[in-house]
Amino acid sequence: MFLRNTYKVLFSKNKKIYKSIKNIFGFYPGNVFLYKLALRHKSATRKKLNGVKVNNERLEFLGDALIGAIVADFLFRKYPFESEGFLTDMRSKIVSRSALNKLSLKLGLNSHIVAGNEQGKNARSAGGDAFEAFIGALYLDKGYNFTKHILVNRIIKLHLDMEVLESIEVNYKSKIVEWSQKNKITASFDVIDEIGKKFQKQYEVGVFVDGKEIARARDYSIRGAEKIAAEKAWHILSENDDEN
Amino acid sequence: MFLRNTYKVLFSKNKKIYKSIKNIFGFYPGNVFLYKLALRHKSATRKKLNGVKVNNERLEFLGDALIGAIVADFLFRKYPFESEGFLTDMRSKIVSRSALNKLSLKLGLNSHIVAGNEQGKNARSAGGDAFEAFIGALYLDKGYNFTKHILVNRIIKLHLDMEVLESIEVNYKSKIVEWSQKNKITASFDVIDEIGKKFQKQYEVGVFVDGKEIARARDYSIRGAEKIAAEKAWHILSENDDEN
Repeated sequence: MFLRNTYKVLFSKNKKIYKSIKNIFGFYPGNVFLYKLALRHKSATRKKLNGVKVNNERLEFLGDALIGAIVADFLFRKYPFESEGFLTDMRSKIVSRSALNKLSLKLGLNSHIVAGNEQGKNARSAGGDAFEAFIGALYLDKGYNFTKHILVNRIIKLHLDMEVLESIEVNYKSKIVEWSQKNKITASFDVIDEIGKKFQKQYEVGVFVDGKEIARARDYSIRGAEKIAAEKAWHILSENDDEN
Repeated sequence: MFLRNTYKVLFSKNKKIYKSIKNIFGFYPGNVFLYKLALRHKSATRKKLNGVKVNNERLEFLGDALIGAIVADFLFRKYPFESEGFLTDMRSKIVSRSALNKLSLKLGLNSHIVAGNEQGKNARSAGGDAFEAFIGALYLDKGYNFTKHILVNRIIKLHLDMEVLESIEVNYKSKIVEWSQKNKITASFDVIDEIGKKFQKQYEVGVFVDGKEIARARDYSIRGAEKIAAEKAWHILSENDDEN
């Protein structure tokens, strides 16, 4: 195994990519063509005779799903006493497009992306897409358990700070707005009272869903009151949503 | 192994659940308590001293992610020449809440759900939730490869008809509406021309995004023209979205 890998690395025309993957992720690829495909941005699509487009989009679809599962498993075990709402929020923070773009940059994956033009090279999400596709390639090449090992031990544990992620605040107001749009229900945040005067002044904000008040909160700023009310309302909505 | 399982089944107070799982899915559980937890609906939540809620919600979070990954893998291999858009649509059809609710009913999983009250027992999504949680339990109990084997060979291949799923039409108009709401961009479908008279009459419908026409199509009904125009527009939006 060792000899075969050394041979591949020293004499392959893909020497550079073998060494880069070993350096970044700590393993030698089996089928190097999968990883090369993962790094082919859609701006560098090659068309086959049967009309099939050759780029990293299919691998991105696969990798995205695998990352979702592996991160879910990681969080499930790391936080045995937390609710599924907490786990969902933490996963969103880890796998958000901007988080994956940053990760790709930090790992040095970006410099290996093959793009067809400047626009593709500079596309905002090219890094995150390539990272996802890379995980898809790794999964096809080495299977689930190895992929999980690399993603958890070489990437998440080395490059993400869970305590920092925990402390990032969830924007409950936009969660409610998104939820209401998705379910075609009206939701609004209205100031329903002002208490005290001048520097003592507090605002009372209510959250109205379908015209009905479901939560309210008071704070020295409208924004502050909205934030507290939104979090209360979100928990109430989540409870009800599950029961339907 | 066989003896141990037989012993467990014959003498366990959980005999019924052992036998049900064997009958439905074709395997004996290792840790039966995981599966019992998977079937505990949130209406039957038990609270522990430390405030932790004991029900199937955490397992549902895990199972949902695992189903997403396994179905992605299954589709990736089954349709080697289809685009990631096709794979995404097919997966949505397989893992939609209503599809999973039906599956749970068909498998007979519903009758094993432990609910705390009538409302919980009849909750619309209790079946799909329990199915997801069950897959989460299976994954913790037996690992990824075994879970994939059961989900693909005992569930997808036996209970889902891929040809029927392929033929279910995707509603591109609502995809565009959702997309526009999510991104806070206006999108509208307007009749821009009527061609011919009476039975020959055709409608030309345009799709306008941010006030700009991005696609148009003609058909004998407004609804028909909207449908064709929406599909065109969706592909154009997807292309642009990826490049940003």
